[in-house]
Amino acid sequence: MALSNGAVNLSSKLARFDEYWAPRTVARFNDHDVMVVKVKGEFVWHHHDDTDDFFLVLAGQLTIRLRDREVELGPGELFVVPAGAEHQPYAVDEAEVLLIEPTGTPNTGDPTTAVRRVEI
Amino acid sequence: MALSNGAVNLSSKLARFDEYWAPRTVARFNDHDVMVVKVKGEFVWHHHDDTDDFFLVLAGQLTIRLRDREVELGPGELFVVPAGAEHQPYAVDEAEVLLIEPTGTPNTGDPTTAVRRVEI
Repeated sequence: MALSNGAVNLSSKLARFDEYWAPRTVARFNDHDVMVVKVKGEFVWHHHDDTDDFFLVLAGQLTIRLRDREVELGPGELFVVPAGAEHQPYAVDEAEVLLIEPTGTPNTGDPTTAVRRVEI
Repeated sequence: MALSNGAVNLSSKLARFDEYWAPRTVARFNDHDVMVVKVKGEFVWHHHDDTDDFFLVLAGQLTIRLRDREVELGPGELFVVPAGAEHQPYAVDEAEVLLIEPTGTPNTGDPTTAVRRVEI
């Protein structure tokens, strides 16, 4: 489906799916995908050699575990994982998150295990 | 001031200034500045030849006037102005917005009229 060329309502996009850890692309920006994702539980430890990883929490609580510390994020809080830094997103309860990554970036850092990115 | 290497709370950042149309950089991401801005009234018509322009409304209502239409944005709604497209942001009442642009992009599209970008 073609991406909208109008306003993108993030809540409306999030209402259209239930799967966890399966980002949906809602807009494109300078060769990056702007995505929404629902998360719950632990994602895999991973890193991206060539890109920073942008997280903005829209609802719920998200922890970004780094090898040396943890970053706790609530609604309206963002964090950028630097390129190369190993990290593990984790949420006790369901959380909703805005992600931005270069188009084509595998979400696990590994094309063989990444989920296919879907546009809505 | 160095940018935080931890969670960035957007409301806290916005509470630190009152000026309109003066974006504050709160994080960096893949050579882009992630900024918060307070807006009210009309900004200048402008365009960016080499970059898309990302707007996510955090509070209030923002209109992005394009030459052929207007895009109305409320909280939790985003819009990406394509590179080269003339646009004029406009807000009747104060609104708070998250912006992302390549580091060094003049906010008016013209270095001679752009505001200096400040980190907080």
